[in-house]
Amino acid sequence: MTATIRAFETSPDKGRGLARDMPVRWAFEEVRQPYDVHLVSFAEMKQPAHRTRQPFGQIPTYEDGDLILFESGAIVLHIAEQHGGLLPDDADARARAIAWMFAAKSTVEPPVIEREAAMLMERDKSWYEERRPILDDRVRVRLGDLSRRLGDSDWLDGEFSAGDLLMVNVLRRPAATDVVKEFPNLVAYIERGEARPAFRRAYDAQHEVFARAQVPA
Amino acid sequence: MTATIRAFETSPDKGRGLARDMPVRWAFEEVRQPYDVHLVSFAEMKQPAHRTRQPFGQIPTYEDGDLILFESGAIVLHIAEQHGGLLPDDADARARAIAWMFAAKSTVEPPVIEREAAMLMERDKSWYEERRPILDDRVRVRLGDLSRRLGDSDWLDGEFSAGDLLMVNVLRRPAATDVVKEFPNLVAYIERGEARPAFRRAYDAQHEVFARAQVPA
Repeated sequence: MTATIRAFETSPDKGRGLARDMPVRWAFEEVRQPYDVHLVSFAEMKQPAHRTRQPFGQIPTYEDGDLILFESGAIVLHIAEQHGGLLPDDADARARAIAWMFAAKSTVEPPVIEREAAMLMERDKSWYEERRPILDDRVRVRLGDLSRRLGDSDWLDGEFSAGDLLMVNVLRRPAATDVVKEFPNLVAYIERGEARPAFRRAYDAQHEVFARAQVPA
Repeated sequence: MTATIRAFETSPDKGRGLARDMPVRWAFEEVRQPYDVHLVSFAEMKQPAHRTRQPFGQIPTYEDGDLILFESGAIVLHIAEQHGGLLPDDADARARAIAWMFAAKSTVEPPVIEREAAMLMERDKSWYEERRPILDDRVRVRLGDLSRRLGDSDWLDGEFSAGDLLMVNVLRRPAATDVVKEFPNLVAYIERGEARPAFRRAYDAQHEVFARAQVPA
Protein backbone atom coordinates (compact mmCIF):
# COMPACT_ATOMS: atom_id res chain seq x y z
CA MET A 1 0.00 0.00 0.00
CA THR A 2 1.24 3.48 -0.88
CA ALA A 3 1.17 6.01 1.95
CA THR A 4 -0.54 9.38 1.45
CA ILE A 5 0.74 12.66 2.84
CA ARG A 6 -1.11 15.95 3.04
CA ALA A 7 0.63 19.14 2.00
CA PHE A 8 -0.27 22.78 1.27
CA GLU A 9 -2.36 23.41 -1.82
CA THR A 10 -0.68 26.83 -1.99
CA SER A 11 2.53 26.90 0.01
CA PRO A 12 3.36 30.25 1.64
CA ASP A 13 7.04 29.62 0.79
CA LYS A 14 6.31 29.86 -2.95
CA GLY A 15 7.81 26.46 -3.67
CA ARG A 16 11.15 26.94 -1.93
CA GLY A 17 10.77 23.66 -0.04
CA LEU A 18 10.51 25.29 3.38
CA ALA A 19 7.15 23.79 4.38
CA ARG A 20 7.19 20.72 6.57
CA ASP A 21 6.09 18.32 3.86
CA MET A 22 9.63 18.73 2.46
CA PRO A 23 11.46 16.52 5.05
CA VAL A 24 8.78 13.85 4.64
CA ARG A 25 9.07 13.89 0.82
CA TRP A 26 12.85 13.80 1.17
CA ALA A 27 12.66 10.80 3.52
CA PHE A 28 10.45 8.88 1.05
CA GLU A 29 12.95 9.65 -1.72
CA GLU A 30 15.96 8.53 0.36
CA VAL A 31 14.34 5.16 1.03
CA ARG A 32 13.00 4.99 -2.56
CA GLN A 33 9.35 4.54 -1.67
CA PRO A 34 6.51 6.06 -3.70
CA TYR A 35 3.94 8.23 -1.91
CA ASP A 36 0.69 9.96 -2.79
CA VAL A 37 0.01 13.60 -2.03
CA HIS A 38 -3.35 15.07 -1.08
CA LEU A 39 -3.33 18.88 -1.17
CA VAL A 40 -5.24 20.90 1.42
CA SER A 41 -6.20 24.58 1.52
CA PHE A 42 -5.61 26.78 4.57
CA ALA A 43 -9.35 26.83 5.28
CA GLU A 44 -9.55 23.02 5.10
CA MET A 45 -6.58 22.63 7.49
CA LYS A 46 -8.46 24.31 10.30
CA GLN A 47 -11.65 22.25 9.84
CA PRO A 48 -12.62 19.40 12.20
CA ALA A 49 -12.09 16.76 9.48
CA HIS A 50 -8.40 17.68 9.14
CA ARG A 51 -8.01 18.12 12.89
CA THR A 52 -8.95 14.49 13.45
CA ARG A 53 -5.74 13.78 11.51
CA GLN A 54 -3.72 16.72 12.84
CA PRO A 55 -4.91 18.16 16.18
CA PHE A 56 -3.00 21.43 15.65
CA GLY A 57 -4.45 22.06 12.17
CA GLN A 58 -1.13 21.85 10.35
CA ILE A 59 0.55 19.88 7.59
CA PRO A 60 1.98 17.34 6.94
CA THR A 61 0.01 14.28 7.90
CA TYR A 62 0.80 10.69 6.91
CA GLU A 63 -1.78 7.98 6.23
CA ASP A 64 -1.11 4.33 5.56
CA GLY A 65 -4.04 1.97 5.97
CA ASP A 66 -5.46 2.57 9.43
CA LEU A 67 -2.43 4.50 10.65
CA ILE A 68 -2.64 8.30 10.70
CA LEU A 69 0.41 10.22 11.90
CA PHE A 70 1.31 13.87 12.34
CA GLU A 71 4.55 15.74 13.29
CA SER A 72 7.17 15.76 10.54
CA GLY A 73 9.85 14.40 12.93
CA ALA A 74 7.68 11.43 13.88
CA ILE A 75 6.70 10.75 10.25
CA VAL A 76 10.35 10.79 9.13
CA LEU A 77 11.23 8.44 12.00
CA HIS A 78 8.37 6.12 11.03
CA ILE A 79 9.52 6.01 7.39
CA ALA A 80 13.10 5.40 8.57
CA GLU A 81 11.97 2.50 10.75
CA GLN A 82 9.93 0.91 7.95
CA HIS A 83 12.62 1.11 5.27
CA GLY A 84 16.41 0.98 5.23
CA GLY A 85 18.68 3.92 4.45
CA LEU A 86 17.95 6.62 7.04
CA LEU A 87 19.05 5.01 10.31
CA PRO A 88 22.26 3.06 10.99
CA ASP A 89 22.00 -0.68 11.66
CA ASP A 90 24.22 -0.44 14.75
CA ALA A 91 21.95 0.07 17.78
CA ASP A 92 24.08 2.77 19.44
CA ALA A 93 24.52 4.72 16.20
CA ARG A 94 20.76 4.45 15.58
CA ALA A 95 19.99 5.94 19.02
CA ARG A 96 22.43 8.79 18.35
CA ALA A 97 20.83 9.53 14.97
CA ILE A 98 17.45 9.78 16.72
CA ALA A 99 19.01 12.16 19.27
CA TRP A 100 19.97 14.44 16.37
CA MET A 101 16.38 14.26 15.09
CA PHE A 102 15.14 15.57 18.45
CA ALA A 103 17.98 18.13 18.54
CA ALA A 104 16.91 19.50 15.14
CA LYS A 105 13.26 19.80 16.13
CA SER A 106 13.43 20.81 19.78
CA THR A 107 16.80 22.55 20.27
CA VAL A 108 17.77 24.17 16.95
CA GLU A 109 14.40 24.84 15.30
CA PRO A 110 12.62 26.73 18.13
CA PRO A 111 14.91 29.83 18.20
CA VAL A 112 14.83 29.82 14.38
CA ILE A 113 11.02 29.84 14.36
CA GLU A 114 10.95 32.49 17.08
CA ARG A 115 13.18 34.75 14.96
CA GLU A 116 11.08 34.04 11.87
CA ALA A 117 7.83 34.84 13.69
CA ALA A 118 9.24 38.20 14.82
CA MET A 119 10.48 38.98 11.29
CA LEU A 120 7.03 38.22 9.89
CA MET A 121 4.74 39.57 12.58
CA GLU A 122 6.55 42.19 14.66
CA ARG A 123 8.46 44.11 11.99
CA ASP A 124 6.20 47.17 12.39
CA LYS A 125 6.43 47.20 16.20
CA SER A 126 8.38 49.86 18.09
CA TRP A 127 10.54 47.20 19.76
CA TYR A 128 11.50 45.28 16.63
CA GLU A 129 14.95 46.82 16.08
CA GLU A 130 15.94 46.50 19.75
CA ARG A 131 14.75 42.90 20.06
CA ARG A 132 16.26 41.72 16.80
CA PRO A 133 19.83 41.22 18.16
CA ILE A 134 18.45 39.16 21.09
CA LEU A 135 16.75 36.83 18.61
CA ASP A 136 19.81 36.72 16.36
CA ASP A 137 21.95 35.71 19.32
CA ARG A 138 19.60 32.90 20.35
CA VAL A 139 19.98 31.40 16.87
CA ARG A 140 23.73 32.15 16.81
CA VAL A 141 24.38 30.30 20.09
CA ARG A 142 22.74 27.12 18.78
CA LEU A 143 24.39 27.29 15.36
CA GLY A 144 27.78 27.99 16.93
CA ASP A 145 27.45 24.86 19.06
CA LEU A 146 26.28 22.87 16.05
CA SER A 147 29.16 24.18 13.93
CA ARG A 148 31.73 23.20 16.57
CA ARG A 149 30.28 19.71 16.84
CA LEU A 150 30.13 19.20 13.07
CA GLY A 151 33.73 20.39 12.62
CA ASP A 152 35.00 19.20 9.27
CA SER A 153 32.81 16.09 9.14
CA ASP A 154 30.37 15.61 6.29
CA TRP A 155 27.47 14.63 8.56
CA LEU A 156 26.65 14.92 12.26
CA ASP A 157 27.48 11.34 13.24
CA GLY A 158 29.07 9.07 10.63
CA GLU A 159 26.90 8.38 7.59
CA PHE A 160 24.01 10.61 6.47
CA SER A 161 20.95 9.86 8.63
CA ALA A 162 17.43 11.06 9.40
CA GLY A 163 19.11 13.38 11.93
CA ASP A 164 20.97 15.18 9.14
CA LEU A 165 17.83 15.24 7.02
CA LEU A 166 15.85 17.10 9.70
CA MET A 167 18.78 19.36 10.63
CA VAL A 168 19.42 20.46 7.03
CA ASN A 169 15.71 21.25 6.71
CA VAL A 170 15.81 23.46 9.80
CA LEU A 171 18.97 25.25 8.62
CA ARG A 172 17.35 25.98 5.23
CA ARG A 173 14.74 28.25 6.87
CA PRO A 174 15.49 31.89 5.99
CA ALA A 175 15.72 32.91 9.65
CA ALA A 176 18.51 30.34 10.08
CA THR A 177 20.40 30.89 6.82
CA ASP A 178 21.01 34.59 7.63
CA VAL A 179 23.05 33.43 10.63
CA VAL A 180 24.37 30.22 9.02
CA LYS A 181 26.52 32.39 6.75
CA GLU A 182 28.76 33.10 9.76
CA PHE A 183 29.63 29.37 9.87
CA PRO A 184 31.20 28.13 6.60
CA ASN A 185 31.07 24.48 7.65
CA LEU A 186 27.29 24.74 8.13
CA VAL A 187 26.91 26.39 4.72
CA ALA A 188 28.79 23.44 3.20
CA TYR A 189 26.70 20.99 5.25
CA ILE A 190 23.45 22.40 3.84
CA GLU A 191 24.88 22.28 0.31
CA ARG A 192 25.82 18.62 0.82
CA GLY A 193 22.25 17.89 1.87
CA GLU A 194 20.75 19.79 -1.05
CA ALA A 195 23.06 18.00 -3.49
CA ARG A 196 21.64 14.58 -2.63
CA PRO A 197 19.56 13.19 -5.52
CA ALA A 198 16.74 12.35 -3.08
CA PHE A 199 16.64 15.98 -1.92
CA ARG A 200 16.45 17.20 -5.52
CA ARG A 201 13.57 14.85 -6.37
CA ALA A 202 11.65 15.94 -3.25
CA TYR A 203 12.35 19.59 -3.95
CA ASP A 204 11.17 19.32 -7.56
CA ALA A 205 7.99 17.50 -6.51
CA GLN A 206 6.93 20.18 -4.03
CA HIS A 207 7.99 22.96 -6.43
CA GLU A 208 5.78 21.49 -9.12
CA VAL A 209 2.75 21.83 -6.80
CA PHE A 210 3.50 25.52 -6.44
CA ALA A 211 4.17 26.06 -10.16
CA ARG A 212 0.94 24.28 -11.13
CA ALA A 213 -1.08 26.40 -8.69
CA GLN A 214 0.11 29.51 -10.58
CA VAL A 215 -1.48 28.39 -13.84
CA PRO A 216 -5.16 29.47 -13.89
CA ALA A 217 -7.43 26.47 -14.41
CA MET B 1 24.91 -2.31 33.45
CA THR B 2 23.24 0.67 35.13
CA ALA B 3 22.92 3.78 32.98
CA THR B 4 24.16 7.14 34.27
CA ILE B 5 22.43 10.44 33.69
CA ARG B 6 23.82 13.91 34.30
CA ALA B 7 21.67 16.50 36.04
CA PHE B 8 22.08 19.93 37.61
CA GLU B 9 24.12 20.10 40.81
CA THR B 10 22.00 23.12 41.76
CA SER B 11 18.78 23.23 39.78
CA PRO B 12 17.47 26.72 38.99
CA ASP B 13 13.91 25.44 39.58
CA LYS B 14 14.66 24.87 43.29
CA GLY B 15 13.65 21.21 43.15
CA ARG B 16 10.27 21.65 41.51
CA GLY B 17 11.05 18.98 38.93
CA LEU B 18 11.04 21.39 35.99
CA ALA B 19 14.56 20.63 34.71
CA ARG B 20 14.91 18.19 31.85
CA ASP B 21 16.36 15.39 33.94
CA MET B 22 12.82 14.97 35.33
CA PRO B 23 11.27 13.23 32.27
CA VAL B 24 14.30 10.92 32.08
CA ARG B 25 14.06 10.01 35.78
CA TRP B 26 10.31 9.49 35.38
CA ALA B 27 10.87 7.19 32.39
CA PHE B 28 13.37 5.06 34.37
CA GLU B 29 10.83 4.80 37.20
CA GLU B 30 7.97 3.81 34.85
CA VAL B 31 10.02 0.94 33.43
CA ARG B 32 11.43 0.11 36.90
CA GLN B 33 15.09 0.42 35.99
CA PRO B 34 17.72 1.77 38.38
CA TYR B 35 19.94 4.63 37.20
CA ASP B 36 22.94 6.52 38.52
CA VAL B 37 23.11 10.30 38.65
CA HIS B 38 26.22 12.39 38.12
CA LEU B 39 25.69 16.03 39.12
CA VAL B 40 27.27 18.85 37.11
CA SER B 41 27.72 22.54 37.89
CA PHE B 42 26.79 25.30 35.45
CA ALA B 43 30.48 26.02 34.83
CA GLU B 44 31.19 22.34 34.11
CA MET B 45 28.26 22.12 31.66
CA LYS B 46 29.86 24.66 29.35
CA GLN B 47 33.29 23.00 29.34
CA PRO B 48 34.61 20.95 26.39
CA ALA B 49 34.48 17.69 28.41
CA HIS B 50 30.72 18.02 28.90
CA ARG B 51 30.20 19.27 25.34
CA THR B 52 31.61 16.03 23.96
CA ARG B 53 28.57 14.46 25.63
CA GLN B 54 26.13 17.32 25.00
CA PRO B 55 27.07 19.65 22.12
CA PHE B 56 24.75 22.42 23.36
CA GLY B 57 26.15 22.41 26.93
CA GLN B 58 22.93 21.31 28.60
CA ILE B 59 21.58 18.53 30.79
CA PRO B 60 20.51 15.74 30.78
CA THR B 61 22.86 13.29 29.16
CA TYR B 62 22.57 9.50 29.24
CA GLU B 63 25.51 7.10 29.32
CA ASP B 64 25.36 3.33 29.12
CA GLY B 65 28.58 1.54 28.19
CA ASP B 66 29.84 3.14 24.99
CA LEU B 67 26.56 4.89 24.22
CA ILE B 68 26.24 8.56 25.08
CA LEU B 69 22.94 10.29 24.31
CA PHE B 70 21.55 13.78 24.73
CA GLU B 71 18.08 15.35 24.18
CA SER B 72 15.53 14.37 26.83
CA GLY B 73 13.02 13.27 24.16
CA ALA B 74 15.56 10.94 22.56
CA ILE B 75 16.66 9.55 25.93
CA VAL B 76 13.08 8.83 26.97
CA LEU B 77 12.47 7.12 23.62
CA HIS B 78 15.63 5.04 24.05
CA ILE B 79 14.58 3.93 27.54
CA ALA B 80 11.09 3.15 26.21
CA GLU B 81 12.56 1.01 23.41
CA GLN B 82 14.86 -0.90 25.80
CA HIS B 83 12.20 -1.71 28.41
CA GLY B 84 8.46 -2.35 28.35
CA GLY B 85 5.83 -0.01 29.77
CA LEU B 86 6.15 3.28 27.89
CA LEU B 87 5.22 2.37 24.32
CA PRO B 88 2.29 0.21 23.13
CA ASP B 89 3.04 -3.21 21.60
CA ASP B 90 0.76 -2.53 18.63
CA ALA B 91 2.90 -1.04 15.82
CA ASP B 92 0.40 1.68 14.82
CA ALA B 93 -0.26 2.73 18.44
CA ARG B 94 3.50 2.82 19.03
CA ALA B 95 4.02 5.17 16.06
CA ARG B 96 1.21 7.45 17.33
CA ALA B 97 2.77 7.57 20.83
CA ILE B 98 6.05 8.68 19.24
CA ALA B 99 4.14 11.36 17.29
CA TRP B 100 2.93 12.73 20.65
CA MET B 101 6.53 12.76 21.89
CA PHE B 102 7.52 14.98 18.97
CA ALA B 103 4.36 17.07 19.43
CA ALA B 104 5.28 17.72 23.08
CA LYS B 105 8.86 18.74 22.26
CA SER B 106 8.47 20.55 18.95
CA THR B 107 4.90 21.90 18.82
CA VAL B 108 3.78 22.54 22.41
CA GLU B 109 7.05 23.24 24.23
CA PRO B 110 8.51 25.98 21.96
CA PRO B 111 5.83 28.67 22.59
CA VAL B 112 5.97 27.76 26.30
CA ILE B 113 9.74 28.29 26.38
CA GLU B 114 9.40 31.50 24.37
CA ARG B 115 6.92 32.87 26.94
CA GLU B 116 9.14 31.74 29.79
CA ALA B 117 12.23 33.37 28.27
CA ALA B 118 10.37 36.68 27.94
CA MET B 119 9.08 36.44 31.54
CA LEU B 120 12.62 35.84 32.78
CA MET B 121 14.66 38.09 30.52
CA GLU B 122 12.48 40.86 29.08
CA ARG B 123 10.38 41.83 32.08
CA ASP B 124 12.21 45.16 32.46
CA LYS B 125 11.91 46.05 28.77
CA SER B 126 9.57 48.79 27.55
CA TRP B 127 7.77 46.34 25.25
CA TYR B 128 7.13 43.61 27.81
CA GLU B 129 3.52 44.49 28.65
CA GLU B 130 2.52 44.94 25.02
CA ARG B 131 4.17 41.71 23.87
CA ARG B 132 2.89 39.58 26.74
CA PRO B 133 -0.61 38.95 25.23
CA ILE B 134 1.01 37.85 21.93
CA LEU B 135 3.04 35.25 23.82
CA ASP B 136 0.07 34.19 25.93
CA ASP B 137 -1.96 33.63 22.77
CA ARG B 138 0.73 31.50 21.15
CA VAL B 139 0.61 29.18 24.16
CA ARG B 140 -3.21 29.36 24.33
CA VAL B 141 -3.66 28.28 20.70
CA ARG B 142 -1.57 25.12 21.25
CA LEU B 143 -3.17 24.26 24.59
CA GLY B 144 -6.67 24.86 23.18
CA ASP B 145 -5.94 22.38 20.36
CA LEU B 146 -4.47 19.91 22.84
CA SER B 147 -7.46 20.27 25.17
CA ARG B 148 -9.91 19.61 22.33
CA ARG B 149 -8.01 16.51 21.26
CA LEU B 150 -7.74 15.14 24.81
CA GLY B 151 -11.46 15.70 25.46
CA ASP B 152 -12.52 13.57 28.42
CA SER B 153 -9.91 10.88 27.85
CA ASP B 154 -7.39 10.06 30.54
CA TRP B 155 -4.41 10.06 28.15
CA LEU B 156 -3.68 11.31 24.64
CA ASP B 157 -4.05 7.99 22.83
CA GLY B 158 -5.26 4.99 24.82
CA GLU B 159 -2.98 3.88 27.63
CA PHE B 160 -0.39 6.16 29.28
CA SER B 161 2.69 6.37 27.07
CA ALA B 162 6.01 8.18 26.66
CA GLY B 163 3.99 10.79 24.72
CA ASP B 164 1.95 11.60 27.83
CA LEU B 165 5.09 11.58 29.95
CA LEU B 166 6.75 14.28 27.82
CA MET B 167 3.53 16.28 27.39
CA VAL B 168 2.81 16.39 31.14
CA ASN B 169 6.38 17.58 31.71
CA VAL B 170 5.93 20.43 29.23
CA LEU B 171 2.58 21.44 30.74
CA ARG B 172 4.12 21.56 34.24
CA ARG B 173 6.38 24.48 33.24
CA PRO B 174 5.17 27.67 34.94
CA ALA B 175 4.73 29.50 31.62
CA ALA B 176 2.32 26.74 30.54
CA THR B 177 0.42 26.24 33.81
CA ASP B 178 -0.71 29.90 33.88
CA VAL B 179 -2.62 29.22 30.66
CA VAL B 180 -3.45 25.57 31.43
CA LYS B 181 -5.85 26.83 34.13
CA GLU B 182 -8.21 27.92 31.33
CA PHE B 183 -8.56 24.24 30.33
CA PRO B 184 -9.90 22.07 33.18
CA ASN B 185 -9.29 18.83 31.31
CA LEU B 186 -5.59 19.70 30.96
CA VAL B 187 -5.38 20.52 34.69
CA ALA B 188 -6.83 17.08 35.45
CA TYR B 189 -4.45 15.49 32.89
CA ILE B 190 -1.40 16.96 34.64
CA GLU B 191 -2.75 15.80 38.01
CA ARG B 192 -3.19 12.27 36.65
CA GLY B 193 0.42 12.31 35.51
CA GLU B 194 1.70 13.65 38.82
CA ALA B 195 -0.30 11.04 40.73
CA ARG B 196 1.55 8.14 39.12
CA PRO B 197 3.84 6.42 41.62
CA ALA B 198 6.73 6.57 39.11
CA PHE B 199 6.31 10.34 38.83
CA ARG B 200 6.39 10.68 42.62
CA ARG B 201 9.57 8.64 42.94
CA ALA B 202 11.28 10.67 40.20
CA TYR B 203 10.10 13.93 41.73
CA ASP B 204 11.36 12.97 45.18
CA ALA B 205 14.74 11.90 43.80
CA GLN B 206 15.39 15.21 42.04
CA HIS B 207 14.01 17.16 45.02
CA GLU B 208 16.44 15.42 47.32
CA VAL B 209 19.36 16.71 45.18
CA PHE B 210 18.12 20.25 45.70
CA ALA B 211 17.45 19.81 49.42
CA ARG B 212 20.89 18.30 50.00
CA ALA B 213 22.56 21.19 48.15
CA GLN B 214 20.99 23.57 50.68
CA VAL B 215 22.83 21.95 53.61
CA PRO B 216 26.30 23.50 53.92
CA ALA B 217 28.98 20.80 53.76
